Amino acid sequence: MVSISVDLMGGDHGPEVTIPGVALSLERHPDTRFVLHGIAAECEPILARHPALQKASTFIPAEIAVQMDAKPSQALRQGRYRSSMWCAIESVKTGNADVCVSAGNTGALMAMAMFCLRTMANIERPAIAAIWPTMRGESIVLDVGATVGADAQQLIDFSMMGAAMSRALFQIQRPTVGLLNIGVEEVKGNEEVKEAGRLLRDANLPGLKYHGNVEGNDLGRGTVDVVVTEGFVGNIALKTAEGTARQIAQYLRAAMSRTLLAKIGYFFAKGAFDLLREKMDPGKVNGGVFLGLNGIVIKSHGGADADGFANAIDVGYDMARNGLKARIEQDLNLYHSRRPSDLSGPKAGVDEQGQ
Amino acid sequence: MVSISVDLMGGDHGPEVTIPGVALSLERHPDTRFVLHGIAAECEPILARHPALQKASTFIPAEIAVQMDAKPSQALRQGRYRSSMWCAIESVKTGNADVCVSAGNTGALMAMAMFCLRTMANIERPAIAAIWPTMRGESIVLDVGATVGADAQQLIDFSMMGAAMSRALFQIQRPTVGLLNIGVEEVKGNEEVKEAGRLLRDANLPGLKYHGNVEGNDLGRGTVDVVVTEGFVGNIALKTAEGTARQIAQYLRAAMSRTLLAKIGYFFAKGAFDLLREKMDPGKVNGGVFLGLNGIVIKSHGGADADGFANAIDVGYDMARNGLKARIEQDLNLYHSRRPSDLSGPKAGVDEQGQ
Repeated sequence: MVSISVDLMGGDHGPEVTIPGVALSLERHPDTRFVLHGIAAECEPILARHPALQKASTFIPAEIAVQMDAKPSQALRQGRYRSSMWCAIESVKTGNADVCVSAGNTGALMAMAMFCLRTMANIERPAIAAIWPTMRGESIVLDVGATVGADAQQLIDFSMMGAAMSRALFQIQRPTVGLLNIGVEEVKGNEEVKEAGRLLRDANLPGLKYHGNVEGNDLGRGTVDVVVTEGFVGNIALKTAEGTARQIAQYLRAAMSRTLLAKIGYFFAKGAFDLLREKMDPGKVNGGVFLGLNGIVIKSHGGADADGFANAIDVGYDMARNGLKARIEQDLNLYHSRRPSDLSGPKAGVDEQGQ
Repeated sequence: MVSISVDLMGGDHGPEVTIPGVALSLERHPDTRFVLHGIAAECEPILARHPALQKASTFIPAEIAVQMDAKPSQALRQGRYRSSMWCAIESVKTGNADVCVSAGNTGALMAMAMFCLRTMANIERPAIAAIWPTMRGESIVLDVGATVGADAQQLIDFSMMGAAMSRALFQIQRPTVGLLNIGVEEVKGNEEVKEAGRLLRDANLPGLKYHGNVEGNDLGRGTVDVVVTEGFVGNIALKTAEGTARQIAQYLRAAMSRTLLAKIGYFFAKGAFDLLREKMDPGKVNGGVFLGLNGIVIKSHGGADADGFANAIDVGYDMARNGLKARIEQDLNLYHSRRPSDLSGPKAGVDEQGQ
């Protein structure tokens, strides 16, 4: 039995999309219980159309909905304790839910999640992990924008969290981890990345296999299971890939409507194009996952449709079912208990930060 | 009359591809004179097959060719003064050529170009500019990997150099310039980007129009004429876009060969697909341009075919014809002559670095 709390008010379309999305995910995983948070007047009429979902869920009315364009500070000030977003996160804190899902605005969701759940012991900063479609399947990429900049220790934390997520989501025993860099040679890149690479190689962690550096084109190739980078670079890489996919889709549409022959070809190959569109659809592989907090929070694309929102909930289901949070804590504890002797040796600078 | 020096030995295929490439570019621009550098035994038999090119060029035999996998330091040690790469760059220094083109290894080419040509007055670091295909046409993106990290002043230098290149290549009077960031709001990003944004807004430079921040997806959209970032982020964005294009091409091939209907569709639409392939081909928009040195050096894709190499030479032709180097110098001089009063005002810290 998995329990998931949902902010019904988030996203560009609100409960019109989130409620059918939750219902869809329930069909796929009938052993889920939902704690639903939303404005009663908007949600109850739609909920009434989904009796199976009503039976499997508790609806908790909220006073306000966080706006999609609210600044994080503003959202916190107005929405703390009484918005559907806050209450959905709080359900995780109180133990009423294993994981929280919202399609609300990312900055507000991260601010509230940090304020409500706090970061895990041994973790300085949370990260947002994206599930990245590749030629081989799917990889996990983090951080895609939780914070700007990361030192070597934070990059190692991201590596462990991403590897734990890969194990929980994809059942990969010892996921390969690569550091995003501008060349595969160890001498490349900035100081933080070089230092993190050295530490990861020396640590030889049981929960992950350190691959070395990877480059931007390795993301689509799926060279490693987990790609680690700081939030500025990760966010730009993610949006560059999304933009390139959209650009090529536009080229394709233009090319297929240019001549009569192309139009005839499109007519015959329409099934193939539909399949391709689905593969290229960012809503399909939906769900940025906040890692490093005392509770798992999943951010769905704001523009997702019911199907996309259901996919984000499915991700939450898999992670709760496979005990992602416990896995991360276990890996972190192991690493930090070994750290002073195994990793830093006699180096004083590291000991000061150590446990 | 434009004079271009070419390293015939660079690239994965050497003179077999570079010589036909140069010949192709000559057909398109008959007013070019070439200074060709290569190993005589390998180049002369191929040159003999291109009489028009022979007439329009001087061949200068070199002693050695820089290997594609040579480390920059190793290439410098072995290839200085006597490799085709070095001598091609030196032709620019001595004034025998307006611009140098090589498909050789990037690190070695940059090291030799810096050593031979030195950076321009007022420029601390060179940048590599890429010509990026967009939904609107083409943008210039820099730095895509000359150096890791850039402070605010270097980002401003990149802005001026990129804008001068945009004017020279695309005849845009006052190109729009955006700083690559993780959000469009001015408060987003790291300190260097925020400071550069403030300075660019205040400077109101005559040679460019500062647009503000742009995000990763603005690259493919073509939101601005020039996108400025430091080399680590720029290199990762470039390779991520290339990787995504390759990934989608693979999806497309797989989708089009899956069913009989798709294959029939492909048969009819083949012309459209060929057009698309050309648009997505990185060799087509070929040529990273080294900016900020006392001479223009163009790096062609190592894997380019003759057509791709010819495109890189065409870029060199346009830049020489439109006096790119003089334009950059002019903009830099104007900026630095105005700088103490207009930009920094009474701020002592800036005056120290100022001219």
